Amino acid sequence: MHRVKVRVVEDALDANSTLAQANRADFDRHGVTVVNLMGAPGAGKTALLEQVVADGLGDVRLGILEGDVEGSLDADRLARLHVPVTQINTAAGFGGECHLDANMVRSALGAVALDELDLLVIENVGNLVCPAEFRVGEDARVMVTSVTEGEDKPLKYPLMFRACDVVVVNKVDLLPHLDVDLELLLHRIDKVHPDVPVMVVSGRTGEGIDAVRHWLHELHAAKAAVRA
Amino acid sequence: MHRVKVRVVEDALDANSTLAQANRADFDRHGVTVVNLMGAPGAGKTALLEQVVADGLGDVRLGILEGDVEGSLDADRLARLHVPVTQINTAAGFGGECHLDANMVRSALGAVALDELDLLVIENVGNLVCPAEFRVGEDARVMVTSVTEGEDKPLKYPLMFRACDVVVVNKVDLLPHLDVDLELLLHRIDKVHPDVPVMVVSGRTGEGIDAVRHWLHELHAAKAAVRA
Repeated sequence: MHRVKVRVVEDALDANSTLAQANRADFDRHGVTVVNLMGAPGAGKTALLEQVVADGLGDVRLGILEGDVEGSLDADRLARLHVPVTQINTAAGFGGECHLDANMVRSALGAVALDELDLLVIENVGNLVCPAEFRVGEDARVMVTSVTEGEDKPLKYPLMFRACDVVVVNKVDLLPHLDVDLELLLHRIDKVHPDVPVMVVSGRTGEGIDAVRHWLHELHAAKAAVRA
Repeated sequence: MHRVKVRVVEDALDANSTLAQANRADFDRHGVTVVNLMGAPGAGKTALLEQVVADGLGDVRLGILEGDVEGSLDADRLARLHVPVTQINTAAGFGGECHLDANMVRSALGAVALDELDLLVIENVGNLVCPAEFRVGEDARVMVTSVTEGEDKPLKYPLMFRACDVVVVNKVDLLPHLDVDLELLLHRIDKVHPDVPVMVVSGRTGEGIDAVRHWLHELHAAKAAVRA
């Protein structure tokens, strides 16, 4: 019995991995670089995207795949900025899942005009646990943490901080009004994921957003060079 | 095949429900009122508990069961205040689950001195989706949302706001520094869960904490009267 159980779990993991590879092949064929944007509810993932979109990414054509349990509030916010946005709701057909998986992303790809994009940002469901366990075919994972969440999050949710390629520390405009030690937070991020690049930003004031824009640009240039 | 699949899901749900009832029977036998405290990572659940514990609950003996994926940072914070705290880590033996379920709580009950308590607060894993789906044997569910998370959370995570008996709106000391409309947030909470009691507090300044303390007192008195 034990062997059968293990086998089922492995199959389930494989299914996500297989579908993530299929997504990745589609993205590569269209020359689209893909970012999986993760973080807690209210970390400011959408506000960060709004800031990035507001001044654009030069000649890099950006699209967004927006994951939410219900509703389309974030997709509506972003669509106002004239960027192509596709909504995935995990409550409709996926049982109210607390994360995106490769199959959900795959089911939405028919609605995404990949040949008109260079960079696709997939905004995951707000959650610091499960999104880290499901690859969706992305080239890179960005994790957003807000200083209002406190300095303890890297130690309490280490998998998420380890599973990402860059950490964005958001809402630093609020630091003067918080009992939060930014240096301690940065130290703990580095302890959990040594040498991970960290960008300190404010989605509200725009502070530090140029670094995010630059990082996205460089990521796409590097991926495009590999594909060429 | 479809019928078999549905049957498996029902059994799984039943297992949690059965164990939640067993937990509840244990709590009732010892006259312990139990609160399931839920909210996003960084909503300030632990800071709220620290404020409640700091001035005590009069003759109501409080204990805490602390749920985290990893580590014991929150349990350590609370134990410093001389309140009995028991830690459950979902990473150890439970696969890094993003929520507590009735079985995890049951597995910890041997370490909780129920006969020395009147009120047990179970602090759930920080998450706005899955904790709402798993009862653990509690008498009431308290949901903490921070104003820094924005006004959109009731619409994006409606199940969590509907599944609770009271909503605590935290971190209102930060309102002067945010582009967040408290009235709109309160309106949306009421829209998703009409007439749910709402307490507006600051875990940092202590504003509104007396109302939380009063609510806990009344809850325990009401449950004790039913049991008598």
